Amino acid sequence: MEKKLFEEKISSQIIFEGEIVNLYFDKVKLPNNRVATREKVTHPGAVGIVPVTRNNEIILIRQFRYPVGDVLIEIPAGKLGKGEPPYECAKRELEEEIGAVGGTLINICTFYTSPGFCNEILYLYLALDFEEKENSLDEDEFLQVFRVKLGDSLDMIKSGTIKDAKTIIGILMARDYIGNL
Amino acid sequence: MEKKLFEEKISSQIIFEGEIVNLYFDKVKLPNNRVATREKVTHPGAVGIVPVTRNNEIILIRQFRYPVGDVLIEIPAGKLGKGEPPYECAKRELEEEIGAVGGTLINICTFYTSPGFCNEILYLYLALDFEEKENSLDEDEFLQVFRVKLGDSLDMIKSGTIKDAKTIIGILMARDYIGNL
Repeated sequence: MEKKLFEEKISSQIIFEGEIVNLYFDKVKLPNNRVATREKVTHPGAVGIVPVTRNNEIILIRQFRYPVGDVLIEIPAGKLGKGEPPYECAKRELEEEIGAVGGTLINICTFYTSPGFCNEILYLYLALDFEEKENSLDEDEFLQVFRVKLGDSLDMIKSGTIKDAKTIIGILMARDYIGNL
Repeated sequence: MEKKLFEEKISSQIIFEGEIVNLYFDKVKLPNNRVATREKVTHPGAVGIVPVTRNNEIILIRQFRYPVGDVLIEIPAGKLGKGEPPYECAKRELEEEIGAVGGTLINICTFYTSPGFCNEILYLYLALDFEEKENSLDEDEFLQVFRVKLGDSLDMIKSGTIKDAKTIIGILMARDYIGNL
């Protein structure tokens, strides 16, 4: 840690404790010894999985996202359960959301979604050689599963049809990994 | 909008109004008519800029990010001012953070950073053919500017040295745009 950049916590006030996020309003000491405020959202972390079939198709999901008020196209994903390792979470979400079991899961990237105000970390996996069975959604989970050619998913990024960060990174990194888009 | 996926707002309670984010706790009606709660963070939106020099170097920033407690490597970026068009914001942040003026700004991607709980939208630009002058940071802004070869920035993604979503998308999309990494 470089001292010239570091911000030291002076105080921390919890504003909200939710099911998904907590919100804190903190005071910090800047490198010039002045005091500043920081709004910090904490999140349990999440996984996203790029499922690529033996036919080089990627399995995607359409889902309503209340915060943005729109149906987005995304890779299968989900929040980490308490103490749940990312790899186990990825296996669970793959089976629940698209019915994919077995095969190989490869961690292709790990990143922060928006580190200016939030600590959410996202573990991205590439899923290969899985078997496809029935999915098993929660009663209150609504989504549509569909598939496109890997090359078409890249066009969907370039045209703005896909506009979810983890999905964009997943497809671009999977392309580099598989090397045949 | 597909009716089968849509969630209708029933009520909305504001929990926090901050400088950067607001937090709402809402109730929605699901497609099966059941009621669920939604935690929603609102954000003014932001820009990120991939500045590529005439020598095919990318200009990057080291900055302490309080929510994650670490120094991250990122592209120049910043929040939209009230009513500020993304293009104007990108020009302003480029000059303030790295002293780049003039040249061409190309919108290479626009995406949501974490649409499960937040409406933050990020406008990504590629900056080319700019002149380099002195940067002009706010008194309370601390960052280190450095530069690497575009190809090396790709290795920094693969090795996990770069772990910020907008920076990863920016470098991967810039590579496709420039086509010479």
